[in-house]
Amino acid sequence: MRNIKMTIAYEGTNYFGWQKQNDRITIEEEIEKVLSKILKESVDIKGSGRTDAGVHAYGQVANFKTTKRIGLEELKRACNTILPRDISIIDVQEVDELFDSRKSAKIKHYRYIVNNSEVHDALNKDRKYQHKYKVDIEVMKKAANDILGEHDFTAFRASGSSSKNVIQTIYKVDIVKEGANIIIDIEGTGFLYNMVRIIVGTLLEIGSSKLKEDTIKDMLAKKDRKLGGKTVPAVGLYLVEVIYQ
Amino acid sequence: MRNIKMTIAYEGTNYFGWQKQNDRITIEEEIEKVLSKILKESVDIKGSGRTDAGVHAYGQVANFKTTKRIGLEELKRACNTILPRDISIIDVQEVDELFDSRKSAKIKHYRYIVNNSEVHDALNKDRKYQHKYKVDIEVMKKAANDILGEHDFTAFRASGSSSKNVIQTIYKVDIVKEGANIIIDIEGTGFLYNMVRIIVGTLLEIGSSKLKEDTIKDMLAKKDRKLGGKTVPAVGLYLVEVIYQ
Repeated sequence: MRNIKMTIAYEGTNYFGWQKQNDRITIEEEIEKVLSKILKESVDIKGSGRTDAGVHAYGQVANFKTTKRIGLEELKRACNTILPRDISIIDVQEVDELFDSRKSAKIKHYRYIVNNSEVHDALNKDRKYQHKYKVDIEVMKKAANDILGEHDFTAFRASGSSSKNVIQTIYKVDIVKEGANIIIDIEGTGFLYNMVRIIVGTLLEIGSSKLKEDTIKDMLAKKDRKLGGKTVPAVGLYLVEVIYQ
Repeated sequence: MRNIKMTIAYEGTNYFGWQKQNDRITIEEEIEKVLSKILKESVDIKGSGRTDAGVHAYGQVANFKTTKRIGLEELKRACNTILPRDISIIDVQEVDELFDSRKSAKIKHYRYIVNNSEVHDALNKDRKYQHKYKVDIEVMKKAANDILGEHDFTAFRASGSSSKNVIQTIYKVDIVKEGANIIIDIEGTGFLYNMVRIIVGTLLEIGSSKLKEDTIKDMLAKKDRKLGGKTVPAVGLYLVEVIYQ
């Protein structure tokens, strides 16, 4: 059995997220359909994790098993010819049989893009979130440091969700202002349901003085989602990279 | 009568171009509807020029006359609240009564973005044109110099079109490679129908050795559209700025 690892980019706008669902168009299903057509066998791919409806990816990773002898470049080219224009395969590798795109993942890198302006960004309506209020970037950066390290992130998951691994480690939160944009890059061992979107929503409200500067410390200590800011929408969120070593 | 100048950004994907048409959704009409609603009078805006279906703008300009006393900031905010999310008003000014967004324009600046890669750019399917073939940027740059200056651009308009002012001056053609992208910036006194898209299509074919390096000189001398490259699609084209002085 060959084990094939694919790196995938997509704009999530027109899909109901990554994971297969009955009667709803998803990215996983589109890719499986194309692979099954090319390889002339039923193909079951495993992604590194779900992304929600409207979330984008520069570097989602998935793997699948096959006995077919197709060349990697040929496979990549065939996929990119047939796939819808908002999904592309940017890399294909043959990997060790033990590689599992979800279980082998060491670090995930997400980006969130905010248009911090009174005027909405007409050319990126599905790719940025507009936050109109003035933001103090230095205050946001300082608060972001409170997330770093290993914590119980119960306060940073959607209320009602029941993710198991609430203990995660965040290695990096970089916040950069580029023109009217605020770009927030977050890397960590794993993320609970809506965790990036709750972190960003909380940081924005701290930066706009709607929440106290020590809100994140409070949330971590009290494990209380209600202390945080709102969950910002999917449009601004990108899965940038999944790191395996 | 007040004369109001607006600078407008839009993603053209979901519109049948700038100019009003019967029963088809256009950018001009969307803006007129919004202004008429805000000002409670029928408003007729004049754009600096049409853009075709699928063409985008960072800085289209339009003006209109009104006797209403609304403040400029209030007008801008009201427009941006009501307009569809893929159209925005980025600036509003009150200008001399003689200002006419079309007739007063001195220079237009267009940009064309090419994804020069074997893999399509899934996150920009409606905002870049994919050209898969290898391109020699230096050859393109050299050929681009042949367009500079005042010429009869009959060979660079859509065959069958009958634009009047075939004599135009091109001040600048800048070609930059940024990662997988080729970004082509063109400034000139005015552009015939499809002119930017024919220039870019011809430059790409020269860069990929499908056309001879002196093709542009030939086209200008013989005034023959058929000597040039294909008209690249609207998706990669942006009206960046209209300059008035």
